[in-house]
Amino acid sequence: MRVLIIGGGGFLGQKIARSLAASGTLRGEPITAMDLADLAAPPPMDAPFEVACHAVDISDATAVSALFSSRPDVIFHLAAIVSGQAEAEFDLGMNVNLFGSIHVFEAARALGTNPVVVFTSSCAVYGGEIPEKIEDYTQLNPQTSYGAQKAAAELLITDYSRKGFLDGRAPRLPTVTIRPGKANAAASSFMSSIFREPLQGEEAVCPVDPDYALWYASPRVTVANLIRCAEIPAASFGENRGFALPGRVGTIGEMIEAMRKVAGDEPVSRIRWEKDQRILDIVTGWRPHINPVKARALGLAADASFEDNVRYFLEDDIRR
Amino acid sequence: MRVLIIGGGGFLGQKIARSLAASGTLRGEPITAMDLADLAAPPPMDAPFEVACHAVDISDATAVSALFSSRPDVIFHLAAIVSGQAEAEFDLGMNVNLFGSIHVFEAARALGTNPVVVFTSSCAVYGGEIPEKIEDYTQLNPQTSYGAQKAAAELLITDYSRKGFLDGRAPRLPTVTIRPGKANAAASSFMSSIFREPLQGEEAVCPVDPDYALWYASPRVTVANLIRCAEIPAASFGENRGFALPGRVGTIGEMIEAMRKVAGDEPVSRIRWEKDQRILDIVTGWRPHINPVKARALGLAADASFEDNVRYFLEDDIRR
Ligand SMILES: NC(=O)c1ccc[n+]([C@@H]2O[C@H](COP(=O)([O-])OP(=O)(O)OC[C@H]3O[C@@H](n4cnc5c(N)ncnc54)[C@H](O)[C@@H]3O)[C@@H](O)[C@H]2O)c1
Ligand SMILES: NC(=O)c1ccc[n+]([C@@H]2O[C@H](COP(=O)([O-])OP(=O)(O)OC[C@H]3O[C@@H](n4cnc5c(N)ncnc54)[C@H](O)[C@@H]3O)[C@@H](O)[C@H]2O)c1
Repeated sequence: MRVLIIGGGGFLGQKIARSLAASGTLRGEPITAMDLADLAAPPPMDAPFEVACHAVDISDATAVSALFSSRPDVIFHLAAIVSGQAEAEFDLGMNVNLFGSIHVFEAARALGTNPVVVFTSSCAVYGGEIPEKIEDYTQLNPQTSYGAQKAAAELLITDYSRKGFLDGRAPRLPTVTIRPGKANAAASSFMSSIFREPLQGEEAVCPVDPDYALWYASPRVTVANLIRCAEIPAASFGENRGFALPGRVGTIGEMIEAMRKVAGDEPVSRIRWEKDQRILDIVTGWRPHINPVKARALGLAADASFEDNVRYFLEDDIRR
Repeated sequence: MRVLIIGGGGFLGQKIARSLAASGTLRGEPITAMDLADLAAPPPMDAPFEVACHAVDISDATAVSALFSSRPDVIFHLAAIVSGQAEAEFDLGMNVNLFGSIHVFEAARALGTNPVVVFTSSCAVYGGEIPEKIEDYTQLNPQTSYGAQKAAAELLITDYSRKGFLDGRAPRLPTVTIRPGKANAAASSFMSSIFREPLQGEEAVCPVDPDYALWYASPRVTVANLIRCAEIPAASFGENRGFALPGRVGTIGEMIEAMRKVAGDEPVSRIRWEKDQRILDIVTGWRPHINPVKARALGLAADASFEDNVRYFLEDDIRR
């Protein structure tokens, strides 16, 4: 079992790699080698199997094709230009999120082995004029370039799968929180920073009202779901490889109360409330009410409570 | 007003060109010039304005960019590899239906004038696990490569429109019948040939049962709808440029009875019934129950009866 993680230097790519290094198996087979690829080669990683790290730009078809000379059995394709940047730099978003994904699908097809490809889509594919409650059969109606590029790549991975070129799985991730590390330029950045910074003794600004609701999942549950996505038998996916992952709906206020239960009053007192219209304009269009019937039937899970998310962050990411 | 019709040598492209030549106007302005482009240069056409004919392969980005040196105000983009061929020749379908469409969108964007682009999508974007009755917010779940490529191009034309790169309109056409000319290799070919051939004294084979239902529109109504799609104000389209055009649901049996009313018993007697499992396998997945609320609100129309379709064919296409 050879595994390739593209975007393997990123937040979720690193966590998937560490989880596979810890378990040593995938799809019931021992992992014999793992390749991690990202724009800059990811750092080496301890594992009970060989790990090779590569610098590859997926917008370069030739480089992607060379990367596949390792003939992976399972590919996690996580490389992406995220929402804020894909909106500001349209051509870069197209080149990475759409054409780069097609390069990955084509390289997988060229293996001729029908390899498993897990492609991380996003709930940003929803938006615009669709019913408030989103079902598995609700139209993908993205209102960002990032969402449009993810939705187009989903359609293609379903078609490549139907043709037998690859065995694709395209879960739509909820907002993953609490994301460790530094704040980034994403409009959703506050959905992690208002917990992450206060839990580490720092101030954070919340740009929305406490009743703002979001659809979220913890990194720990997301990584488990993505690995499980690689393990589910192909036939279970039916006639579409894209589907919403389970998540939880919570308001910012409820999530803060959960943090209070786990970590006391002090972190909560470090949140400053300061509305930011630019952020509100973007995140108000996002959709928290998703009913992921298909994903639940596939055995994919949501967190039990946001208290868990807080605990996971303290256990997995602060390491104090 | 300069008009460009890409795929202008095809069935609908020729009919749009002739309709514009007859009216001489579009969007309330006199047409000053029309360019017709297709794989082979379309034949010259009489019109009250200059008509230029070009041989262009849209899978060649440079050729598409050169075609746009005429700086069109309205582009009809009809060039496509149709369903049967896109299924048999996957790479050709991708190169024309997806990448070729992107070349057209990029050339329109490069004009910097936000030109109107009418892109003909198809009801083949529907399929798979979706409710029987299709609403405007039902997921596009194509089960053919042609449908997947059309659906992906729809997502992009909506995003290009949102960004202000072009002013796109992506109507999903019903099966257009009665199509003149020769039978083609499309699985839907019989939906025209069982009327077209008998109305001209020839035999035809019907490969499905009389109770097989389809979603259809006449060429005359389709051409009027496509021209109207170019004329509707951009703001009316809301947050998605893709939408199902109006059509009619009819069973083959009902459509044959309509032909009998217009043309008598003789043509009906020329239909032979001979089931064809290969055709049944494809067309059984198609969806006749579409509720095009948005298109009706936009003032787009369906035929009044299949008797009209038969009459239009006799008037427009046989010219006897
Ligand atoms: N984190 C979330 O909340 C969330 C939600 C929905 C979807 N997703 C999706 O999950 C995936 C992983 O998300 P993440 O949070 O780990 O993001 P991340 O930004 O931490 O990781 C993405 C990685 O892709 C790499 N990358 C970008 N362009 C590349 C290119 N041209 N070639 C090669 N690598 C390139 C980046 O360097 C980065 O390391 C992404 O596809 C993202 O769109 C994430
Ligand atoms: N006729 C229908 O029932 C129907 C239904 C749904 C959608 N549509 C869509 O409507 C459009 C027109 O349909 P039609 O029935 O007139 O089809 P058609 O096949 O008669 O016309 C399509 C034209 O595109 C041209 N073409 C193909 N590849 C090309 C390339 N690489 N570069 C330039 N031109 C190329 C062909 O030569 C042809 O003349 C198509 O986009 C089709 O997918 C048609």
